[in-house]
Amino acid sequence: MVIVLKPGTEKAKQAQLVDWLKGMGVGVHISEGDFQTVLGLIGSVDGIDMELIESLSIVDSVKRVSETFKCCNRKFHPEDTVVSVGNVKVGGGHFCRIAGPCSVESEEQIVGIARAVKAAGADMLRGGAFKPRTSPYDFQGLKATGLELLKIAKQETGLPIVSEIMSAADLPLFEDVDVLQVGARNMQNFDLLKELGHVDKPILLKRGLANTLKELLMSAEYIMASGNENIILCERGIRTYSDYMRNTLDLAAVPMLHELSHLPVIVDPSHATGIARMVGPMAMAAAACGSDGLIIEVHNDPIHALCDGAQSIRPEEFAVISAKIDAVRSAAFGEVASGAESGAVPGKAGGSVVSIDAKGDRNRKVV
Amino acid sequence: MVIVLKPGTEKAKQAQLVDWLKGMGVGVHISEGDFQTVLGLIGSVDGIDMELIESLSIVDSVKRVSETFKCCNRKFHPEDTVVSVGNVKVGGGHFCRIAGPCSVESEEQIVGIARAVKAAGADMLRGGAFKPRTSPYDFQGLKATGLELLKIAKQETGLPIVSEIMSAADLPLFEDVDVLQVGARNMQNFDLLKELGHVDKPILLKRGLANTLKELLMSAEYIMASGNENIILCERGIRTYSDYMRNTLDLAAVPMLHELSHLPVIVDPSHATGIARMVGPMAMAAAACGSDGLIIEVHNDPIHALCDGAQSIRPEEFAVISAKIDAVRSAAFGEVASGAESGAVPGKAGGSVVSIDAKGDRNRKVV
Amino acid sequence: MVIVLKPGTEKAKQAQLVDWLKGMGVGVHISEGDFQTVLGLIGSVDGIDMELIESLSIVDSVKRVSETFKCCNRKFHPEDTVVSVGNVKVGGGHFCRIAGPCSVESEEQIVGIARAVKAAGADMLRGGAFKPRTSPYDFQGLKATGLELLKIAKQETGLPIVSEIMSAADLPLFEDVDVLQVGARNMQNFDLLKELGHVDKPILLKRGLANTLKELLMSAEYIMASGNENIILCERGIRTYSDYMRNTLDLAAVPMLHELSHLPVIVDPSHATGIARMVGPMAMAAAACGSDGLIIEVHNDPIHALCDGAQSIRPEEFAVISAKIDAVRSAAFGEVASGAESGAVPGKAGGSVVSIDAKGDRNRKVV
Amino acid sequence: MVIVLKPGTEKAKQAQLVDWLKGMGVGVHISEGDFQTVLGLIGSVDGIDMELIESLSIVDSVKRVSETFKCCNRKFHPEDTVVSVGNVKVGGGHFCRIAGPCSVESEEQIVGIARAVKAAGADMLRGGAFKPRTSPYDFQGLKATGLELLKIAKQETGLPIVSEIMSAADLPLFEDVDVLQVGARNMQNFDLLKELGHVDKPILLKRGLANTLKELLMSAEYIMASGNENIILCERGIRTYSDYMRNTLDLAAVPMLHELSHLPVIVDPSHATGIARMVGPMAMAAAACGSDGLIIEVHNDPIHALCDGAQSIRPEEFAVISAKIDAVRSAAFGEVASGAESGAVPGKAGGSVVSIDAKGDRNRKVV
Repeated sequence: MVIVLKPGTEKAKQAQLVDWLKGMGVGVHISEGDFQTVLGLIGSVDGIDMELIESLSIVDSVKRVSETFKCCNRKFHPEDTVVSVGNVKVGGGHFCRIAGPCSVESEEQIVGIARAVKAAGADMLRGGAFKPRTSPYDFQGLKATGLELLKIAKQETGLPIVSEIMSAADLPLFEDVDVLQVGARNMQNFDLLKELGHVDKPILLKRGLANTLKELLMSAEYIMASGNENIILCERGIRTYSDYMRNTLDLAAVPMLHELSHLPVIVDPSHATGIARMVGPMAMAAAACGSDGLIIEVHNDPIHALCDGAQSIRPEEFAVISAKIDAVRSAAFGEVASGAESGAVPGKAGGSVVSIDAKGDRNRKVV
Repeated sequence: MVIVLKPGTEKAKQAQLVDWLKGMGVGVHISEGDFQTVLGLIGSVDGIDMELIESLSIVDSVKRVSETFKCCNRKFHPEDTVVSVGNVKVGGGHFCRIAGPCSVESEEQIVGIARAVKAAGADMLRGGAFKPRTSPYDFQGLKATGLELLKIAKQETGLPIVSEIMSAADLPLFEDVDVLQVGARNMQNFDLLKELGHVDKPILLKRGLANTLKELLMSAEYIMASGNENIILCERGIRTYSDYMRNTLDLAAVPMLHELSHLPVIVDPSHATGIARMVGPMAMAAAACGSDGLIIEVHNDPIHALCDGAQSIRPEEFAVISAKIDAVRSAAFGEVASGAESGAVPGKAGGSVVSIDAKGDRNRKVV
Repeated sequence: MVIVLKPGTEKAKQAQLVDWLKGMGVGVHISEGDFQTVLGLIGSVDGIDMELIESLSIVDSVKRVSETFKCCNRKFHPEDTVVSVGNVKVGGGHFCRIAGPCSVESEEQIVGIARAVKAAGADMLRGGAFKPRTSPYDFQGLKATGLELLKIAKQETGLPIVSEIMSAADLPLFEDVDVLQVGARNMQNFDLLKELGHVDKPILLKRGLANTLKELLMSAEYIMASGNENIILCERGIRTYSDYMRNTLDLAAVPMLHELSHLPVIVDPSHATGIARMVGPMAMAAAACGSDGLIIEVHNDPIHALCDGAQSIRPEEFAVISAKIDAVRSAAFGEVASGAESGAVPGKAGGSVVSIDAKGDRNRKVV
Repeated sequence: MVIVLKPGTEKAKQAQLVDWLKGMGVGVHISEGDFQTVLGLIGSVDGIDMELIESLSIVDSVKRVSETFKCCNRKFHPEDTVVSVGNVKVGGGHFCRIAGPCSVESEEQIVGIARAVKAAGADMLRGGAFKPRTSPYDFQGLKATGLELLKIAKQETGLPIVSEIMSAADLPLFEDVDVLQVGARNMQNFDLLKELGHVDKPILLKRGLANTLKELLMSAEYIMASGNENIILCERGIRTYSDYMRNTLDLAAVPMLHELSHLPVIVDPSHATGIARMVGPMAMAAAACGSDGLIIEVHNDPIHALCDGAQSIRPEEFAVISAKIDAVRSAAFGEVASGAESGAVPGKAGGSVVSIDAKGDRNRKVV
């Protein structure tokens, strides 16, 4: 850690800080420049509260020499992480299509949609069994029953299943779920994240409603630091003053997260916009800027036939989107691989996937 | 529930929706006006997903005839709720001062600060034992040991203690904690909220980083619907593009929450601004607009002496703020009561506390 | 205009409002439903302040039967507007590439870049002569001299020129400028907008820093209502709490603006992200979601060679992006046309450009 | 200006930057520390674009040694600026009450309200003649006629008048207006600001919808750098995701602006909340945190009698608020002065006005 003092700091105050630091067990190397004095800390700085130091009136800035995020940092792990879910791969050039209903409602519904989205190109099935709802009076999901129905749909179609977990206490119920989703509202539920670090399943981590990219990566770091390195990040829109749509989809997060981290990044255009008609255009855009996959709400419920404003699309619309994805990716990045094993391009490791520059390789520079 | 259809809706689509609603087990009363057709639902609408209906292309708007929030709604409970913590009361004209360090660090520290803030007018002691940190590598608090030290400070001073709980699994450790705090990051951790509904202790519920007032009240509703009605709401700043300060303190939330709900509302100027120099002015402002209390970070750590930018103030600064509060409240609202039992004004019930209008009583109208 | 009264409104208050409305010169048709009373206003409602009515305590909501925006509304003008700038067309299936430096600095610089971007596929040249700067002490642009230099670059290359105008008083200086740009900070400078309504040149209208899509369209409406219908809308990022990048590019605005309005919509990935490395991915994404063009900062200044963080890219990077655009659009929408006349597909009129749905045509529904 | 290079910068790149800087006509002093190399620029740095330098990949940070804002900076002008408007003073311990209708509608209306607010304690009269409206089809104000009516109200009551100016071209019409208001939408209309710098009248500068405090101060700087130092800053709420209210009133801006600048700061609780019932509590809060005044919408129009949701309050409500202000300020800061000359406390200069700390004087430290 490097501490830059403000110009003109009194020597007495500087000495007081140096003494305090030494009392915390770190060595201090003082470098006095013409403009600013810099303190270099030597030894373990784990006990030093960076925010506290930063808040001192004599301190101009504090910088970690070692990076804030370690496990998920591309600097220390230049190759793309490829998350495997059964035969499906996500990241490193493998594009993954996850589709399914918002909530699991019945066996007929979930099996029907599972078959439809599989035929339309889906690699995995999503479906909510535990639903985070703003109101305690709204439908909270079928819970254990919902997970059982998802399992039937998986048996019927072979699609791996993705479902949201809201509490570590529910983990035993998720035994047959292939990917555990952490929802936006729980992105900084650190106790849940720590528990998921001990689980041997991939985690789909959604960005919180008003969280920065650094905070998203630090939440991934919580899981990874506890031992689970199979994480898929998901941009799903942030809360702004935008009208007409539910959230603002921050697509530039995709190439920036790819630059900062080796983890795969997928996009949820359904929750981001809340409008079925916007799902297609945003899915194309996500594919074009290097997303490693999409998670899309698909329904086959007749009530939705009355509706073109809701966020779920029909299976046939999903099929059209799915079919165009590869062409868009190929146009933007050259040769590409799909999520399904059969379509994978071995050894590709995503090198050229997000690059648009003249040199033909992804710029991995960390800002 | 009332469903307003769009002008010019086709009769066939209308019939399809009515059939679907009847299939869900509710009666439907159709009222055709000159401009719009309105469907009134009769019977239990618990199974009807309001958001789904709203998203239908033929639907203009959906309104609940019954209110979204029930337990915390002032409409159904016009009198202010007064939360009692030992001899201390919060709400209904009782103003509560909660003070203490960000984190519990040692017995000497917490007992020292407890004594100092008690002498300076504090009604309760705050101190973090479980710390929600963005980074897994930052100090996570002394945990169980921290709670033990808080207990000692309570024994030494008689001050009730407030501390943050991050997981229902930790509840047994909080037996001697008087008020359980739910932090901003867990405001929509619905599983935690439900568990706290079964606890027989007051809950201090902080507003999330980017949450609306309705979402805050719905989170209170989660706790109340599970049986615990002793909730203190807390405005602590929201995330915006504001510079110079950490968050934007939304003080208008205080009178608006008072209008919408009967629950007490306190303000945290320390986390909202992140700057010690701003704590005083914002504490005065919070008192002047009808807040039922303040939660303020106070330190007595020598390293902070180097600092006037951090969010913690010194005990002597807290004493000055504390002393001015009653005068400000008296100037704004007339005769007032402090949180400590001895200073209470029996039967006052906060009637005149937030009123500034000519009629001399709080306007309780729900918007 | 339709005024929906709250359930249970007192008849006396209703009568008072009806009298006031009649006094304003409109007829009032009262329709009493089982749940709500609706007042339909007959005649000219231009003198009625909708916001005032909406704020009345007895009023539930107010709706305009006629649309808020008229001139730019797709409902009243279903065909895409194609803006012509010399031989270049924007909109209706014509994709336009605008490139050039942030500021005009010298003849050598602007002519050099103009030649480079023309060779790389640009349809128009951008360059700032009047610069809106946060600080009065920062470089304010070469002003009239800058416009003269742009004119030279136009003569040398044949590229039409785009430059920002900050005050109607400067209009005489912009005689040779082909497209007048209104910057984000002036999006609601209504006096400037009105003046530009009398100008016989296309206007490039950028979305303000924190403005909604409706506000953007209303600003376009100011220009169109004054007589100038040649407007190109531009999404350039909005201010949020996002880290790592300057603004948050709201790409979903592209298909939504296309749905609401017939005006062409282009995207500025340079200002939106502020980072050269993000320009390529966001340009691909913009093309993939149906944008009608891009405006990109390109430099050839040696100082920028030290830099991969600034928002300007090199001409050779622009050439790579430019070359991929058509392939991406073709992948997403089928056969497409470029902005240059020679590449146009006559009679195409953008019909299939943003459509991703099964029916193969753009959904023009206004929400 | 000081340029801090990144650790490990190649010497060749460093030399290239130093050469470029020298080519721009500044001297460069190189200070190589153990951790970082710092370049100190000597001579005039007016031609150096700080943002460009900051964006270079070898640059860690750039700092101005001289402050960004000069004229409005408290560091260079420690005493509070007191703006005089006729007999009324604003700032330096003088609290100013500005009241009046949103729009001037008729002589009867504006004279009636002027008399009512004067009787209720107002120091100045506000009234809109030129109205910035989102829609070109909404009422744009009575313009010149409105200003004439304001003049009559001024003659009748002696109250100085405040009205918004939207274009420098209208300046001749504002001859009899005492304070020129720049609205939120024009805060960064730099051409208008420059013109107002040449005017010999106080300017009321409102904070823009999503602007930072630094941007607000830089806009004040535009006016001051052109010669007009009589500026009153106004916090009027920023755009966030807050529900129930129109904007989020950022009251912490008041003490922070007082710390950064010597200019007076007033608060507009009417536009900030958009709700009459919230005006009183927010006016109390503004007074309690050190605001130098309030600008409040007051109506006497019978249609408003139907309404308690609109942002305008009645004269009798304004009288209650006005009467409590002095008591609140006295409680928070000790002895205080009102805006009217007769009530002024000579020589007070605001020293103790916003201070809440133990030392009894305003902390003027610039962050």
